Formats: sequence, structure tokens, C-alpha cells
Amino acid sequence: MKRYEQVVQTLAQRIEQGLYRVGDRLPSIRSLCHEQGVSVSTAQEAYRRLEEAGFAEARPRSGYYVLPRTTPSVLPRVSRPAQRPLDVSQWDQVLELVGGPPDEDEMLMLGRGIPDLGAATLRPLQRMLATLHRHVDVRGLNYDSLSGSRELRQQIARLATTSGCLLHPDDILVTTGCQEALSLSLRILTQPGDVVAVDSPSFYGTMQILKAQGLKALEIPTDPQTGISLEALELALEQWPIKAIQVTPTCNNPLGYTMSEARKRGLLALAQRFDVAIIEDDIYGDLSFTTPRPKTIKSFDDEGRILLCSSFSKTLVPGLRVGWMAPGRYRNQALHMKYVSTGASATLPQRAVAEFITQGHYERHLREMIRQYQRHRDILLGWVERYFPADTGVSYPQGGFLLWLELPGGIDCVRLNERLASERLWIAPGSLFSASGKYRHCLRLNYAAPLTAAIEAGIKRVGETVMAMRDEQAALAG
Amino acid sequence: MKRYEQVVQTLAQRIEQGLYRVGDRLPSIRSLCHEQGVSVSTAQEAYRRLEEAGFAEARPRSGYYVLPRTTPSVLPRVSRPAQRPLDVSQWDQVLELVGGPPDEDEMLMLGRGIPDLGAATLRPLQRMLATLHRHVDVRGLNYDSLSGSRELRQQIARLATTSGCLLHPDDILVTTGCQEALSLSLRILTQPGDVVAVDSPSFYGTMQILKAQGLKALEIPTDPQTGISLEALELALEQWPIKAIQVTPTCNNPLGYTMSEARKRGLLALAQRFDVAIIEDDIYGDLSFTTPRPKTIKSFDDEGRILLCSSFSKTLVPGLRVGWMAPGRYRNQALHMKYVSTGASATLPQRAVAEFITQGHYERHLREMIRQYQRHRDILLGWVERYFPADTGVSYPQGGFLLWLELPGGIDCVRLNERLASERLWIAPGSLFSASGKYRHCLRLNYAAPLTAAIEAGIKRVGETVMAMRDEQAALAG
Ligand SMILES: Cc1ncc(COP(=O)(O)O)c(C=O)c1O
Ligand SMILES: Cc1ncc(COP(=O)(O)O)c(C=O)c1O
Repeated sequence: MKRYEQVVQTLAQRIEQGLYRVGDRLPSIRSLCHEQGVSVSTAQEAYRRLEEAGFAEARPRSGYYVLPRTTPSVLPRVSRPAQRPLDVSQWDQVLELVGGPPDEDEMLMLGRGIPDLGAATLRPLQRMLATLHRHVDVRGLNYDSLSGSRELRQQIARLATTSGCLLHPDDILVTTGCQEALSLSLRILTQPGDVVAVDSPSFYGTMQILKAQGLKALEIPTDPQTGISLEALELALEQWPIKAIQVTPTCNNPLGYTMSEARKRGLLALAQRFDVAIIEDDIYGDLSFTTPRPKTIKSFDDEGRILLCSSFSKTLVPGLRVGWMAPGRYRNQALHMKYVSTGASATLPQRAVAEFITQGHYERHLREMIRQYQRHRDILLGWVERYFPADTGVSYPQGGFLLWLELPGGIDCVRLNERLASERLWIAPGSLFSASGKYRHCLRLNYAAPLTAAIEAGIKRVGETVMAMRDEQAALAG
Repeated sequence: MKRYEQVVQTLAQRIEQGLYRVGDRLPSIRSLCHEQGVSVSTAQEAYRRLEEAGFAEARPRSGYYVLPRTTPSVLPRVSRPAQRPLDVSQWDQVLELVGGPPDEDEMLMLGRGIPDLGAATLRPLQRMLATLHRHVDVRGLNYDSLSGSRELRQQIARLATTSGCLLHPDDILVTTGCQEALSLSLRILTQPGDVVAVDSPSFYGTMQILKAQGLKALEIPTDPQTGISLEALELALEQWPIKAIQVTPTCNNPLGYTMSEARKRGLLALAQRFDVAIIEDDIYGDLSFTTPRPKTIKSFDDEGRILLCSSFSKTLVPGLRVGWMAPGRYRNQALHMKYVSTGASATLPQRAVAEFITQGHYERHLREMIRQYQRHRDILLGWVERYFPADTGVSYPQGGFLLWLELPGGIDCVRLNERLASERLWIAPGSLFSASGKYRHCLRLNYAAPLTAAIEAGIKRVGETVMAMRDEQAALAG
């Protein structure tokens, strides 16, 4: 046994014995050298192996941390949606969510797609907004130029290099949130009646665009770790006249996976072979737990085939509605659609976000949030392990702040939510994420904001309610 | 001759002799009584008659003012657009405008649709925005509810009573500018290929929606004083499968007319008879020079047939992008379209506008602006009279801040603009306002902001350039 292997074994045993617990920081390289009497390179190799084996993970500028299990005990299954294009339904449920439950303030919303809005590193943004609004020149109150503030587009182009993209500011179009970017993209690419391939489960906002535009959703089986099935997609492309492929390949909502570079390239190759455009939703991409952040599919695209869509709704705040798109070869159509959809985007929020980024606050905020979200993921995973049935499937997010659970025994999460309502709890039922209301036995949880005792109590109650429902079902069946 | 008739005659003679000049305030009722030795009711009757005869007009809380001419010397002609549905073109010209000319800061933009952004009565809005952004709670940074802030919708409903509308806050949907309201309305009512009837000339933003959505524009002849021709519209409704009627009946952009209540009712009756929905753009309605402001068509509608669209872009500032719609019986579809188009609207601008209205600043600001715009209209009319060819057709705006000129002798305003560019001047060429580029001999001017010497010099140069072009044409022809 090599020296580093001995070190790996020692650390793994300690973890398994509970000496180091989930989320704990492991000894630094230096103290490991000291304790085990090994060289720096041996300690580094040991940690690399420990990481590979799924015991621990590196966090940028911080060290190695214990993961909750070597691999999550039960992953959600690969999805098996209907193998034909479907009309999208589920609007009533979405409306219940986005219309705002009448007493939202008193509800504990455990499943919304909202970042930590109380983060200290966001404060400079508020300061800038306040200053900008007080000392505003006439241009600040006026219509902005249609493609958006040049300063903001420059900053977005600069940030995009971290995802491997070389964008010119003129390649970018500022939008009213990522929602508008997605909506414009689909309007450019499709006509009513067309078929769009989507990863499944998929963000409900996108699904509802398909519904509104009279499009058919072809939901493609998706693996909770590797993403959309290229094999299934290829079959679908052979079989159906697909006009666009819509995916969220990095820090997926709701599954949390990031597709590997190889699979991203594979997806692009398919799109090229069948000459289809890809709408790449990267809204959570900057919140990846790996450094540097994963590359976008867009970064491999030299034909302008990809319409990259994003916003600052998850990385900063959603209420400003500052989003953007890089529509590739569809720039002219995108400009026109943007004009007729909402005209120029609001002026001052763009300036504030641009300044926030320019002054370095964005990258600082991201670093903090990534650390926090990763820590929170592990805590929430621990709670799920503790409070939910043992055979609950759980995603293992590579970024972002959303967890996906697959409940055993056919529990219906729409009914679960109804029961939780009386306790002022709300989870996002999985059916929101499918064209046809699949995934009723799944649910989404949010771990962005500080995980207070109230949230733990809420999660516990959700788990208890799930178990109670299971027992009732068993009693009925027996 | 009755006593009041004598008074009318006296005043009319003084005006015609130039004793009272255009824009002058006429004697108050009291001093008129004193001077002419008549009763208050006789003086009042005299002013009423003088107003009817087109010599003077009442301004709220201010008195009677001399109008520039009994009727404008030359009105633009009733438009005669093509009598069949057309695809909309002109996007390149619109893009030139909304994309922002590269050196806009150095251009004197004489034709944009922008209110006076330097008005003192706007300052409280900036103060509120600054305060709101500094002391923001988490909800202020979060997604708002989909239909918009309740406070804002309450205020909008309250204000709508002045236009004769009884709206419940739940009848209202906040949008990203009036542009989104119009866009959603057309998406609800039509499918690609459908025909939409529009007043003509018509706001280019609406025309471009038709283009983007693959709709055909049927431009209906429109009178510069009474609005869309009901006779022509009736013929069109008999002849074509029209899916929606799109009009701006109050303080029309670009013509400035307000349709009479009778004609508004007539329009509604036609829509009822042919069972067609009306999209009523009321964005300039609150800037009417009459008190109380004119009623909307919506106020006569008890079937929910009318989708009323508006925003605070012309009454306050456009850069906040706060608009709204009252979609009548189409509420559910409107909510869905709004969700997929941009999600919830930005949170804090809504709060700021709501507070601005609640505290009474909106009505104060309107009063100021109406006074200012009316004064500016008269001044600009004077300049046009002075600096343009005598046979130039000129609109006579009943509200808002836009003037429409019809040039004699087939002057092409796109070419005019090209010539003006070297002098850093820009007018809105009439071709923007037609599906097929009609009205090239027309142009739009703005009189919102203080009419400085620089603006007068600009208007003068435009007039001189027009005359030079006419002379060149005459020389070529001769
Ligand atoms: C994957 C995904 N795309 C798009 C959006 C919409 O983003 P925005 O709020 O910026 O419009 C969301 C928000 O929930 C999302 O999760
Ligand atoms: C008649 C009319 N409707 C709608 C709009 C668009 O308004 P907003 O800027 O609020 O989207 C304008 C703006 O120029 C307009 O003149």
C-alpha cells in the first residue's frame, strides 16, 4: 500500500466512524502533513483520492469538507416521460405559486427558486441603487437603448469568459429577466404547433412558454447526475420534427446536475447533425460549486446556433428583473422581438448591476454564496436523511440552491401540499416541472437562506407528513 | 343681439386685431364683468361661446387663453391608407430610433415621444425611489406577485374613475411598460396571419408588434380631428375577417386628436356588432387639455370587450417601465401571457409609483404638465407658422406633447432627416407610423421639454431645410 493510500484509508475510516461528520472541514494540508508525517504532495494526493471516492470535496480557498455519503444513498431515478409531444398543462398550479398565495408572508415557502436575499454581500447593490436613484440625470429616467446599457453588456461579456465564452458586448441583449430571454428565444425559433425537446423535469416557466405559444413539449428522459439523455434525444430527433432543444445543463433546476463537458459537446454535435438550435438556460451556472465554473455549451459553439439565456435573478436578486441573452446568429430577430415585447429594459437597475460587477462586488458575493449554498446543501441532505423515509430519492446538486426529492410509495405531492397548507408550509410539487403533470411523487426544496430552526422544523414536518401519508396508504391497501 | 353676444363680438374682434395674442390669457370673469358691466353668468356664457367658436380655450384653474387660430389654418388631410391588409415593414427605421443613434447625446432629438423629464414636480419620485432602494426589505428584492403590487393597482383603479372606469384592483395587471400590455393583448387575441384594424397613422411600436406576430395591418382612414373613420371601419369589418381593432382614441399619437364620446360609443357599437375586441391605448389620456379628462371607450364597455393599455411612461418617466392593462374578460389569458413573457414586474418601481400617486404628487404633476404642454403646443404652433411653408398641414393636439406636420410638395422626411443629421437634428419621419411606409411627407415633433432657443433654432433649421428641398425640387421639375 502506497503512503498516500494509507492516509486515504485513515481519513475514510474516521469519516465512516463519525469522527468527522458531514459538512465538517477536514484537516488542512499542512496539519495533515504534520499529523501523518507525510510530504505536501502525498497529502494532496490523498485528498484528491478521497475526493474521487466521494468522501470529501474541495471548496475554493477553504479546504476539504466531508460529504454526507460516499454517493447519495438513493438518487432519483432517470426520468421516463411520455415518448411523444404533449400540450403543456399545469398552469393552475403555477399560478398558485407565482400569483402569490394570499398569505405568503405567513407561509414557510420551502420550495421557491429564490436566492438568499439577506446576504451581507448584497448590501452594496442596495447602496448603489439608492445613490443612482437620488442623483439621477435625465438619461437615467429615459428609455435606455434597446439592446441595453453598454456598461452592463461589457461586464456580462467579461464574466462570460469564465464560462469559456468569447462574447462581444454587441452579442448581448439585456432582457426583463431570464424569462423574457427564454420567451423571445422560443418566439424566434418556433411557430404554433411546433415541437420543442426539453430536459425533464424542467423549469415550469419554460413549460408555460410552450403552452402560451401553442408549442408541443417533447420531454426527454434525463439522468439526475448526467443530464438529458443524448441517446433518447437522438432517437427523438430522428422521429420528430423538433424545432428547438431547450436545456438547463449547468446547475440544473430542479435536479442540480451539471452535464459534463463531453456530454455538452455531444449535445451540440447532435444539434448540428439535425440542424436544430439550442436554447441554453444558464441562470444558475455562476453558482456552480466547482472552480472555475463549468463551461457553457455556448462556449463550444462557433456557428451561433445557441441562444444563451440568463439573468441576475438567482445570483443577485430577482426583483430587479435584469436578465440577458446572447442570441448568436438570431441577433436581429431577437432585437425585434425584444422591442415589441417590452421595448428597452428599465434603465437604472442595469446601471446598478453594472456598477456592482465593475467594483468587484459580484465575484465577492458569488464566492460567499457558493460557500454558503454548498454548506446548506449538506445540512439539508442531512435533514432529509434524518426526517424522510429511508428510500427517498435525493438529488446531489453541483451548484445552486435547489434539492429534488423523489418520494417512495407513490405519495402525491399536490395532496401533500394541501395537507401542509394548514401548517403554513409549502413545497414545490414535482408536477409543476412536467408538461403533463408527471413527477407528482417528487418535490423541490430550497436551501438558499440561512437554515434556521424554523426551517428544520418545517422540513421535519414535511417528512412526518410524508410518512403519515404512506402509513395511511398502507392501511388502506392492507 | 343678446348681451353675451355683444361681449363675444368684442373679444373676438380684439383677438382678430391682435390685441390679445395667441397664448395670451384673456381677462378673468371678474374683470370682464367689471369692464363690460355684465353679470357673472353673462361673462361665463360669453366665454363658453367664444370657446365653442374656437377663439379661446379654458385651462383648468387658470382661465381662458387665446388659441392660435379660429381653426388651424391647414389641418393634415384625412389619411388614405391602402384598403387591404398589409405586412408591416419599416423595422430598420424604428431600430435606428430605439436602438439609439450612436451620438444621441449630441443630437437634438426633435421628434421623440418623451415627456419633460426635468420637471420639478417629478422630484418626489426620485426621492421615493432613493429611499425605497436604501431601506429595502427582503420582499422588495424578491419577485412581486404576478399581477403586480396591490397598492399600485389600487391607485390605478382610483385614477381610472376620472376616465369614467369602475375598475377593481384585480381587473388590473401591471406590465413592463405599455408596450408589453399591447403585445400581450395582441397575442391573446390573434394568431399569425390574422388581420388587425388600426387607426392610421399609428404608433410604430404597435405596428412592429403586428410584424413580429405575423399579423396583417389593415390601416383605416383617420381624421386628424375626429379620429378613426367609423364609416371606413364598418366597411372593413364587413369585408375582412378582422380579429382586433387597435386604436389610441384619446390624445392620439401622433395626431393629437381626442375622439368625441359619441364617436367612441360608435366605435364600441361597431365592435359589438361584429363581435371584435378593441385594444384601447390610453397612454396619453391623462395628459388631455380638458378637465375632467375624456372618458375611455373602456368606460362604456360592460362586456369586458376592451383591453385597456397604458403606462406611466408619458405621464411620469419611461425608464421605470411601469405600465398596466385592464384586460376585461381576457384576464386569465393575460395573466398567463404576462407570466411567460416576463414573469412578475420589477418590484420597487411599482412601490415608488404607488407612493407617488398616494401622496398626491401624480395629480399635482399632471396639472403642471398639462399647463406646460398646452403652452408649449401654442408656442410650437407659432414657430411652425413662422418657419415652415405656409401650406404645411399641422395637427391641433388636444393633449400630450406631440405635433404632426404634413409637408406640401411631396417632401420626403426620410431624406429630410438624412440632411438634418449633419446638423445634428432629428425629426420622427412619418413613415414610421404606417405599415407600408406611407406618410413619408409627414413628420412628428415633440414639445414636452422647455422650448429653448436651441430648440427654436432647430425647428427653424428644419423649416429652412424643407423649403430648400422644395426649391430644389421645383428647380429640377422646372
Ligand atoms: C431555470 C430557470 N430559468 C429561468 C428562470 C426565470 O428567471 P427570471 O426570474 O430571471 O426571469 C428561472 C427562475 O425561477 C429558472 O429557475
Ligand atoms: C401610443 C403609445 N403606446 C405605447 C407606447 C409604449 O409605451 P411604454 O414606453 O410604456 O412601453 C408609446 C410610447 O411611445 C406610445 O406612444
